[in-house]
Amino acid sequence: MKLKIDYSVYLVTDTGFLQGRDFAACIEAALKGGVTLLQYRDKNADSRVLLERALLLKKMCAVYHVPLLINDRLDIALAVQADGVHVGQSDLPVTVVRRLLGEQAVIGASAHNPEEARQALADGADYLGCGAVFGTTTKNDAGYLGLDGLQCIRQAVTAPLVGIGGVNSTNFEQVLQTGANGAAIVSGILAADDIEAEVRKFKTIADRYKNI
Amino acid sequence: MKLKIDYSVYLVTDTGFLQGRDFAACIEAALKGGVTLLQYRDKNADSRVLLERALLLKKMCAVYHVPLLINDRLDIALAVQADGVHVGQSDLPVTVVRRLLGEQAVIGASAHNPEEARQALADGADYLGCGAVFGTTTKNDAGYLGLDGLQCIRQAVTAPLVGIGGVNSTNFEQVLQTGANGAAIVSGILAADDIEAEVRKFKTIADRYKNI
Repeated sequence: MKLKIDYSVYLVTDTGFLQGRDFAACIEAALKGGVTLLQYRDKNADSRVLLERALLLKKMCAVYHVPLLINDRLDIALAVQADGVHVGQSDLPVTVVRRLLGEQAVIGASAHNPEEARQALADGADYLGCGAVFGTTTKNDAGYLGLDGLQCIRQAVTAPLVGIGGVNSTNFEQVLQTGANGAAIVSGILAADDIEAEVRKFKTIADRYKNI
Repeated sequence: MKLKIDYSVYLVTDTGFLQGRDFAACIEAALKGGVTLLQYRDKNADSRVLLERALLLKKMCAVYHVPLLINDRLDIALAVQADGVHVGQSDLPVTVVRRLLGEQAVIGASAHNPEEARQALADGADYLGCGAVFGTTTKNDAGYLGLDGLQCIRQAVTAPLVGIGGVNSTNFEQVLQTGANGAAIVSGILAADDIEAEVRKFKTIADRYKNI
């Protein structure tokens, strides 16, 4: 049976916000705080480094019973037996990922409008990452969607979706108010001085919403 | 049964030498000239572009009955059903690639000395790419091996191996004289004004060597 996912507090990794702190220690703090889903995203490292970090995350996620998805790199996902893959519009097509990973894998796709959202789901995606909801510096090429745009996609599809882009513990509730199932968070968690405590703030807010 | 490979005139793609010429047209000229093996290497393109180019190469290679290997990206190799993968020391380990691709796949590994060569073969590699044989500008991080170093690896292992790094139609014969089974060639083919004619020069030389 397919893994049941809690998309509410979805951490996407980025080493750029760690300010010299240890990668594994920061991710473990986030897992302790209660992130519900983890995506390993790293667009720059060599494959060997990607593999080593993904293996480390896989072990940590197993301890905390948190599913692990890999951004873009289906080979890394296969190598570490991750729970799935997240693909953007310039990554491998959802149809190809589904064919190679099988029906049980969790496949997410980025969508910036209702048309992309419907297409991704028709192609076999399990959930959608929609953004940028707020101004963000994480991905320079991410188009701005806004809360209105997110709500527009929410009304167009019934599949799980998360908002991404500039989400922090202050604006997280606005994302949930659109009917989104959660948010994919990068700097909103990883740039915090106390990562574990920051994740707990998200958890407290998420606990109040039934769309999760 | 495992594919029998002719490693003699082994083209490794690089878009940097095409001087604005069409990628597909240049590769087709090389196939017409008689390259015996093709590796698609592209360290910069998005996964979607990698997939599209790999699919194109797969179709062209089928027409010319030339095996296609993919550099590093096992996911792209799986997606296009390439004949195998070539990995460097900072790519996925050979053991992982072999486990995911199976026994029939052709797996090549870069080796810069006898120790790396023996290890790669023990890990399951089918052939070795050894270099840099000559000074080269293709990969900034490639250590210099020289013809002596190539011969040293040749004497240490019996598996197929090719020299790589700065090989052109003028120095190709020196590579074959070490007992190497061929050369992996980048600019030596792709920077030529007449790619097809340049490949024929390599073929003429290769025809004189029985270690191929």
